[in-house]
Amino acid sequence: MRFDIVTLFPDCFNSVLNSGLLGKALAKQIAEVNLINPRDFTTDKHHKVDDEPYGGGVGMLMKPEPIFSAVESLPILPRREIILMSPQGQTVDQPLLRELSANFDQLVVICGHYEGVDDRVLHLVTREVSLGDFILTGGEIPAMALINGVVRLLPGTVGKVESLKSESFEEGLLDYPQYTRPATFRKWKVPDVLLSGNHAAISRWRYEQQIERTRKRRPDMYKVWMEEMQKLKRFKK
Amino acid sequence: MRFDIVTLFPDCFNSVLNSGLLGKALAKQIAEVNLINPRDFTTDKHHKVDDEPYGGGVGMLMKPEPIFSAVESLPILPRREIILMSPQGQTVDQPLLRELSANFDQLVVICGHYEGVDDRVLHLVTREVSLGDFILTGGEIPAMALINGVVRLLPGTVGKVESLKSESFEEGLLDYPQYTRPATFRKWKVPDVLLSGNHAAISRWRYEQQIERTRKRRPDMYKVWMEEMQKLKRFKK
Repeated sequence: MRFDIVTLFPDCFNSVLNSGLLGKALAKQIAEVNLINPRDFTTDKHHKVDDEPYGGGVGMLMKPEPIFSAVESLPILPRREIILMSPQGQTVDQPLLRELSANFDQLVVICGHYEGVDDRVLHLVTREVSLGDFILTGGEIPAMALINGVVRLLPGTVGKVESLKSESFEEGLLDYPQYTRPATFRKWKVPDVLLSGNHAAISRWRYEQQIERTRKRRPDMYKVWMEEMQKLKRFKK
Repeated sequence: MRFDIVTLFPDCFNSVLNSGLLGKALAKQIAEVNLINPRDFTTDKHHKVDDEPYGGGVGMLMKPEPIFSAVESLPILPRREIILMSPQGQTVDQPLLRELSANFDQLVVICGHYEGVDDRVLHLVTREVSLGDFILTGGEIPAMALINGVVRLLPGTVGKVESLKSESFEEGLLDYPQYTRPATFRKWKVPDVLLSGNHAAISRWRYEQQIERTRKRRPDMYKVWMEEMQKLKRFKK
């Protein structure tokens, strides 16, 4: 998987690309990340990448030409998606990460900055992606999240069985509570069932915890899950 | 605002904290970020921070003791929140960022890693926060998003008027399309109304675009907005 990140702040990616599991995956060449700065594609002497919005308004917008030129300078791999990180896009979720990791060889990721980008950049992009319903100073951290979440799903990044755990999200429930040593920490004990060695009881307890946690914390997710379960029941009849 | 980030990978924050608007805000001492590693609070000779889950399962969990010790070593400011970044938490949105930026002097942010943290860490935290319904290799990038989004709202980070723009999200609609020079780029022209100088017409066009974009792209958000508008109408009668 090749990532081309179009950003006015390429330096801000350095540490994240060099540490943790992501750093290891890149060192193993499971993926490569190329950083490209639209400022290097300006043609005026001031290297101007932003300008005022037509129709008035505060702040500055990223100009379209340097972004088009930056993207058009890139090699084109067979299965390519050009993504704009923007609060107006499709919200990142696990199925989207899975789709991107499975179906593409090259993800070009454009990071918006300042008050946003000239809307004509949408003629260049194939998908707008949002990290969520909140505003950050730029698309760089959202791009890091996207890279991390996609690379995590590529074969070789994490153990095969571990990566399967993410399926728990796709099945529509939150994860169950987990505990490790010591069995008693301060006044809090690990639930007895987990020390019982009874695998059926452990599985049941975990599944109940998943359902209960989701119901309490995420009524929206719980509702969708309940509806799916009811459809499944009807189908079985 | 003081941030204390509890992380096994403090190095991965360096570049993000030193570049862009966030770097400038920290240089201006609008906020400070302290990085603290639970590994420095282990008491065994191998500095063990993770262990296997009770009841079986794949991967490793973060042990509770080093996290408790790390957090308990910190100074305590008057209005303090202790946040665990976890996919099981409350989803980040603009009202949450606003609440955190307005109501607290100190945000302690614990970054989960590996398969998660021992559930007893919840006795220590006052809030669990999730970046969204997807899985990353750790809580570091989510913590960066939280820091960026909160610092952005602190007075002095961005111009006063600019920061008001985020209100557009809180009013429940996506942003309108924006354009900057040149008026014609390749075959695409800026919409005439934006060049008209008619401010009332521009405001109306932008508002219509917001509604239309939200309806098309985010039917979930549109539905909530419509319901709010209808409540408001009834109230006015």
